[in-house]
Amino acid sequence: MPGEKKSLVVAIVGLGLIGGSLALSLKKVFKKRIQIIGIDKDKKTLTKARKTKIFTYLGKNDKNNKVEKSDIVFVCVTIDQIPKILASLSKLKLRKGSIVTDTGSTKHTIFEEAKKILPKGVNFVGGHPIAGTEKSGFENANPSLFYGRIFVISGIVGSKKSSKTIEKIWKKLGCNVVTVSPKEHDRIFSYLSHLPHVLSFGLDKLTTYHLSRKTIRSYGGTSYKDYSRISASSKSLWSEIFLSNQNNLLNNIKSFKTYLTQLEDALTKESKPKIISAIKSKAARA
Amino acid sequence: MPGEKKSLVVAIVGLGLIGGSLALSLKKVFKKRIQIIGIDKDKKTLTKARKTKIFTYLGKNDKNNKVEKSDIVFVCVTIDQIPKILASLSKLKLRKGSIVTDTGSTKHTIFEEAKKILPKGVNFVGGHPIAGTEKSGFENANPSLFYGRIFVISGIVGSKKSSKTIEKIWKKLGCNVVTVSPKEHDRIFSYLSHLPHVLSFGLDKLTTYHLSRKTIRSYGGTSYKDYSRISASSKSLWSEIFLSNQNNLLNNIKSFKTYLTQLEDALTKESKPKIISAIKSKAARA
Repeated sequence: MPGEKKSLVVAIVGLGLIGGSLALSLKKVFKKRIQIIGIDKDKKTLTKARKTKIFTYLGKNDKNNKVEKSDIVFVCVTIDQIPKILASLSKLKLRKGSIVTDTGSTKHTIFEEAKKILPKGVNFVGGHPIAGTEKSGFENANPSLFYGRIFVISGIVGSKKSSKTIEKIWKKLGCNVVTVSPKEHDRIFSYLSHLPHVLSFGLDKLTTYHLSRKTIRSYGGTSYKDYSRISASSKSLWSEIFLSNQNNLLNNIKSFKTYLTQLEDALTKESKPKIISAIKSKAARA
Repeated sequence: MPGEKKSLVVAIVGLGLIGGSLALSLKKVFKKRIQIIGIDKDKKTLTKARKTKIFTYLGKNDKNNKVEKSDIVFVCVTIDQIPKILASLSKLKLRKGSIVTDTGSTKHTIFEEAKKILPKGVNFVGGHPIAGTEKSGFENANPSLFYGRIFVISGIVGSKKSSKTIEKIWKKLGCNVVTVSPKEHDRIFSYLSHLPHVLSFGLDKLTTYHLSRKTIRSYGGTSYKDYSRISASSKSLWSEIFLSNQNNLLNNIKSFKTYLTQLEDALTKESKPKIISAIKSKAARA
């Protein structure tokens, strides 16, 4: 891996929950064998990051050419900002053989953008750590956030060696690394992550509209708590994720409405067999 | 409470997860001060119950007039069976001042039935412990199932004293006891429990149809796990609960479809503000 003998130089663009946790995790694992450059447009975030003393350099942009000299650039901004950051990076004189990688929740659009925009000789490895909580911001960063989690590699432009390097790093952070195509990634996560968030936001919307907070607190059992936890996630962040996976999600919402209509019919007909048939999954557990 | 000085005699009709756990909890708390009569139509359940040695009598029905002589009859069968059991109980010579109570997930229909059918002098106290797991059956019964949980009293026919007695007992089992009208109970739980189950069953149905079990296992993060846990609950049991709260649930499903349509429109228009507006709850956390 680049810099395995000498010190590895990485830049992290975007020091929110994911970028901040990545910085803390990398420093915890690689110690003196790593130099971390931190870039964030928010002054308060930079102040918080500075207090950790783990960064070699911190700034709003790359005016000191620190990113340019990095072995790996981790793009950890929100999904809508990733194409803009890739565009900015493509204007820098990035080192030949260096790797640009990201942590975005959808992969197809980013992969297409990276193919189009990054200069020759710069490798791209799309990435998605299945970690994160309903919290956000550097203040919630946690050096163990990725431990025991899945890291998905999805969309490689350039050398196989570069994806091996990214794989090695995330494995050292405690991840189980899997590889899948960007299209398949986005299809899978439309079911396993984006649709659950759609349902959770909807449940929270309905209950807070029809029941008082006090009633929810007094009567909410474990099933409700499990469901509503993720609805505390940032609405702005999730709007961007939904938009970045528009077609898959529209498809899922349509299917979900069909399911609800089926259940409505069964309930109206007061037919227990029809209800069971509407709610049962493919591997039926009656 | 009846039998506070002498031994309290209770009958539990239905020895599934709830009835079984109630028997174990009562014995754990009241020890020698209680006699428990267990009734269940299933022979295998009776065999499992017998092994615990906590029951004074176990049988398929009340041919030995043990239920008739009880101070309290706990009806712990599935929601669809409760009216039938109330009808059977109304034909027995239950003691004057005795209490019939239940643990059903919806309360309005049961309350109306109890008012109509139980003989004068027999009190009815509708009850709903907000406990239970995705598991079922006496084999999963647990003497701590109700500890730290909410117990809702909903629908009283007869003396206030009888509801105080039931309150006292569930408090001794570690419950926080609250009281609400049957109509309001069913409205509240249509949002906090029945709709979450509808959503969870639907998510599980869609994912198992479109993704392999292996993919779900490999990529499912915490949000998916939280959501799909309750979809392992008994489809038969939940069909009955849905039917017993038909109107409220139909109303909620309609509202949920409206929400999904709103979100579909916003996504199709690729409007971030419209998406945020669609997914935000009343006490907006943007």
